[in-house]
Amino acid sequence: MAAYLGNKLVQMGTKIVGVGRNYAAHAKELGNALPSEPLLFLKPTSSYIREGMAIEIPHPCTALDHEVELGVVIGKKGWDIPQHAAMDHISGYALALDMTARELQAVAKQKGLPWTLAKGYDTFTPIGNFIPKTKVPSCDDLELWLEVDGKLRQKGNTKDMIFSIPVLISYISSIMTLNEGDVILTGTPSGVGPVKAGQKITAGITGLVEMSFDVKLRVSQSASRS
Amino acid sequence: MAAYLGNKLVQMGTKIVGVGRNYAAHAKELGNALPSEPLLFLKPTSSYIREGMAIEIPHPCTALDHEVELGVVIGKKGWDIPQHAAMDHISGYALALDMTARELQAVAKQKGLPWTLAKGYDTFTPIGNFIPKTKVPSCDDLELWLEVDGKLRQKGNTKDMIFSIPVLISYISSIMTLNEGDVILTGTPSGVGPVKAGQKITAGITGLVEMSFDVKLRVSQSASRS
Ligand SMILES: [Mg+2]
Ligand SMILES: [Mg+2]
Ligand SMILES: [Mg+2]
Repeated sequence: MAAYLGNKLVQMGTKIVGVGRNYAAHAKELGNALPSEPLLFLKPTSSYIREGMAIEIPHPCTALDHEVELGVVIGKKGWDIPQHAAMDHISGYALALDMTARELQAVAKQKGLPWTLAKGYDTFTPIGNFIPKTKVPSCDDLELWLEVDGKLRQKGNTKDMIFSIPVLISYISSIMTLNEGDVILTGTPSGVGPVKAGQKITAGITGLVEMSFDVKLRVSQSASRS
Repeated sequence: MAAYLGNKLVQMGTKIVGVGRNYAAHAKELGNALPSEPLLFLKPTSSYIREGMAIEIPHPCTALDHEVELGVVIGKKGWDIPQHAAMDHISGYALALDMTARELQAVAKQKGLPWTLAKGYDTFTPIGNFIPKTKVPSCDDLELWLEVDGKLRQKGNTKDMIFSIPVLISYISSIMTLNEGDVILTGTPSGVGPVKAGQKITAGITGLVEMSFDVKLRVSQSASRS
């Protein structure tokens, strides 16, 4: 059921809104200042993959970083949503990876260009099963972790977010209408770093879910995806 | 029928891929170098509006620019599409406006941040009726024009694109899978400039379509959109 709903989410979603630098320790590790308002970017829903598919390192990319994040799944359309009503617009959560081509992002930042390539390649948003909100009593106290080949790389708690989930929903919906099936990636804790072809990423929300994805090189003109 | 298909497009699309600086005269007017490869950004499909709805100037925005563009509508899913097969993936076209909060874009460029706010507010992608490709014998020779309150502001021809439509489809699909209903905004000719509340934008493709949109200030917490 959760897997079925996860697949449905991937099919019906019309956008993925990413939030950057939402954990102080991660902003610091990349040498960025703390944001005074949420830093938003978009990922295309074509970048979703589900367990069983591999994360693909595209050809020009030599530093593909993992970022483990809590995904918030919108269940009810809304705009200009006040913070006090934000939780009513959530249907549930999903664990996600915000794969980021770090050197493409560095070039974009330096040239003042969009982050689209750095964040938007196919397979750059692995996402786990749908978790109904009834199973998550406190979304502001979840432990996220990520391992590469069994070695712990990221561990953090959603209580350390700079902007809380209601603040994010209110802010984002003041700019763009949130639709059912849209996902907000709420930012990553510290410990991000590159993965190589042949490695395996395992990530989880302690006590709730765990998921794994193999990493491989992308073969152009591949017939492996459908 | 064309209007019905236009509405359907707005509902089913999963992404809008914008192309920046694809006309030399426009790159020049904003003081930008010509790109060596297509410059991509994403707009959320929540930014679509259809005729009858108004373009809204959001509160922090003092310079909302019009950009008239040819939209290419994808009819068949694909990735790594070779240039010679690109036209098979097009179902048709639509005239669109890529409304851009120019001063938010300037801040983003200067700080190395995503263009999401500059391009992504609700109502920032007015789009016309669907035009089946059978009605467009040569997409590389269409005259685009835009008037504000009856004064001509933009006029250009798709033959002056730096990257042609097959090149764009091939390039974009090497990064992200294109799905049925996705739209590529192929860039704007020169003459962009700001609009104010109370003005009316009329735009067209000579001999094919014409559309009009009123501009107003966005009222927060508005119940005017559904
Ligand atoms: Mg992230
Ligand atoms: Mg999208
Ligand atoms: Mg444009």
